[in-house]
Amino acid sequence: MVINEMTDKECGAFLTSASLGRLGCSLDNQPYVVPINFAYEPGYIYVLSTFGRKIAWMRENPKVCVEVDEIANQSQWTSVIASGGYQELPEPQYTGERAHAEKLLGKHYRWWQGALGERQLRVGDDLIAPLFFRIHVDSMTGLRAVDQSSDLT
Amino acid sequence: MVINEMTDKECGAFLTSASLGRLGCSLDNQPYVVPINFAYEPGYIYVLSTFGRKIAWMRENPKVCVEVDEIANQSQWTSVIASGGYQELPEPQYTGERAHAEKLLGKHYRWWQGALGERQLRVGDDLIAPLFFRIHVDSMTGLRAVDQSSDLT
Repeated sequence: MVINEMTDKECGAFLTSASLGRLGCSLDNQPYVVPINFAYEPGYIYVLSTFGRKIAWMRENPKVCVEVDEIANQSQWTSVIASGGYQELPEPQYTGERAHAEKLLGKHYRWWQGALGERQLRVGDDLIAPLFFRIHVDSMTGLRAVDQSSDLT
Repeated sequence: MVINEMTDKECGAFLTSASLGRLGCSLDNQPYVVPINFAYEPGYIYVLSTFGRKIAWMRENPKVCVEVDEIANQSQWTSVIASGGYQELPEPQYTGERAHAEKLLGKHYRWWQGALGERQLRVGDDLIAPLFFRIHVDSMTGLRAVDQSSDLT
């Protein structure tokens, strides 16, 4: 197995092809990690969410980390880590950015609307109104492990 | 889709059956998330690692979070989040705990030894000597989403 560092371009290509990641936020130095669906474009990671602990924490401390990986097995994997800042996209200030996020999130957004409608019916709670946020990516690092023994076969 | 909160017992059973998770740590309120292989037993999550940023950070701030999920699709998934404290297991003080961790990690540990030997040959760097740590789990929460429409088929 050889582990190679990825270039920024390789990290970006990997994030563009992915949609599932794990978001880390932190309050009083207690980290908190949750799975997210996202859409990446250079400089930003867009996310559609409902209100909950991660949003409350990121409003307090906007420093976040998004980890995205693809793990075939223990000697063939890719992991990209993006660090950056949380920015909420409320209406009406960010109508343009929200429309852009909806377009990027594409089918995730359409699925979400359906699921949300159903959840609202069941929960009857307006706190689960959707909200958009994006992460301004300040830095990215990536590692890719390649099992060279499989190259020989 | 219905999202149910999991009991502590259900969270524990899920962690016992899993081996891949994402570890969040934090320094100066900047979170950092990496994939880990782990073994769980009630109260503790055991991990074999090499030295790197996560270890340096957890030595400074032992507050950590481990997120473990199984995502079939967007309406069928399980996600468990364990929060707790980092504890390194150096020799000779923790010889017993290290042997216990090796046993729990089982095949991961054996694979790791092989991969590590190879990496040491390539890198020639004694910083990648393996180290064991465990996380004392202070609290667990879990959510399980069930797509009820599939129950009807």
